[in-house]
Amino acid sequence: MTDTINALRARINQFVEERDWAQFHSPKNLAMAMIVEAAEVVEHFQWMTEADSRALDAETREKVGQELADTFVYLLRIAEVCGIDLIQATHAKIDLNAQKYPVEKCRGSNAKYTEYQ
Amino acid sequence: MTDTINALRARINQFVEERDWAQFHSPKNLAMAMIVEAAEVVEHFQWMTEADSRALDAETREKVGQELADTFVYLLRIAEVCGIDLIQATHAKIDLNAQKYPVEKCRGSNAKYTEYQ
Amino acid sequence: MTDTINALRARINQFVEERDWAQFHSPKNLAMAMIVEAAEVVEHFQWMTEADSRALDAETREKVGQELADTFVYLLRIAEVCGIDLIQATHAKIDLNAQKYPVEKCRGSNAKYTEYQ
Amino acid sequence: MTDTINALRARINQFVEERDWAQFHSPKNLAMAMIVEAAEVVEHFQWMTEADSRALDAETREKVGQELADTFVYLLRIAEVCGIDLIQATHAKIDLNAQKYPVEKCRGSNAKYTEYQ
Repeated sequence: MTDTINALRARINQFVEERDWAQFHSPKNLAMAMIVEAAEVVEHFQWMTEADSRALDAETREKVGQELADTFVYLLRIAEVCGIDLIQATHAKIDLNAQKYPVEKCRGSNAKYTEYQ
Repeated sequence: MTDTINALRARINQFVEERDWAQFHSPKNLAMAMIVEAAEVVEHFQWMTEADSRALDAETREKVGQELADTFVYLLRIAEVCGIDLIQATHAKIDLNAQKYPVEKCRGSNAKYTEYQ
Repeated sequence: MTDTINALRARINQFVEERDWAQFHSPKNLAMAMIVEAAEVVEHFQWMTEADSRALDAETREKVGQELADTFVYLLRIAEVCGIDLIQATHAKIDLNAQKYPVEKCRGSNAKYTEYQ
Repeated sequence: MTDTINALRARINQFVEERDWAQFHSPKNLAMAMIVEAAEVVEHFQWMTEADSRALDAETREKVGQELADTFVYLLRIAEVCGIDLIQATHAKIDLNAQKYPVEKCRGSNAKYTEYQ
């Protein structure tokens, strides 16, 4: 069974190779492309209330999904080009966060949470 | 066998629930948090040449991995809270991109690629 | 009388020249630096309610002012290096916006405003 | 003689008032709008080399000017709504930077400059 994330990585890599686009994919350029896509996610929410952002209509959810997908493609490409195992790096970061934000101290706290990044 | 991305989603959801942080996780707020993390990726590359960004030392690669991880956590959370299947949305977006950027027209072309987003 | 914005431009240009930093100030790099600073503004507001963001305490206002200043410095630098008259460009853009968003159609409308960018 | 930046602020404030848009202009929302515009600046440069970004053609310079203008409008609005004097805050920040990056230590140094933000 092929893991879903590896299947996706393989498909994106093939997409890039077929078009000979790896030459443009320096991590510097990919980081720029990723934040541009992340901004297109932000754009959907900029004039919405928080409550409205929790209750998207089907059309907006579809569009947000497309912008998340674009952001994810560049995130995977940066990891690929830099030789970073994204899944492993994310588990390691959650381990760090779990130490930094112990349950008993942070539970329900906005004040503590403000420092979470 | 548990799929890696589902394992990660489950772990992040549990992390948030244990701290009772879902109340702060409106898509609006999460989109802001995601772009802040994406900017921390950009920050590593802002004064580097493209060539240097392709040849990171081990320490910088480690740090970039941590910022990618933070970006990924918020990306997964937005998808979760909005009820979006990120893997499916990403395959669908690559299908769209494949139509928009046919291999024979785009191969090696920066000009075409400029319009790719 | 020296105009305040020209006085500021002159001071920033001198700051850069004294440090011989113009070599690093390509518009590409400066655009990255500007968005990193804009993200530091966003970071202050990411977990705040809209209402709280309208009522900052003195310490947070001071910090937000510093991040706005950093964003502004890079904005002025991009204009400088690209040979753009920022004040003139901004008046021209407001002229365009005034045509695009006529008062009688847009007044108090969130729906219309959503398309304002 | 009216100072150019005050003339611009007054014009933007009037634009917002005529449309009754101040209700949407919480600092939280404006920070999101500003980073979306900053990303549109970044988008112009994401696949360019640094050298090309220093030699824009007239059409691209015009477009970059429009995106800088949009970013500037939101920057001025955030300062306005938060009660921050942007010019004063920027001079104060440059004073801080001058202490942090003394000429004799930073001259021509990328390494030092990397820490400049």
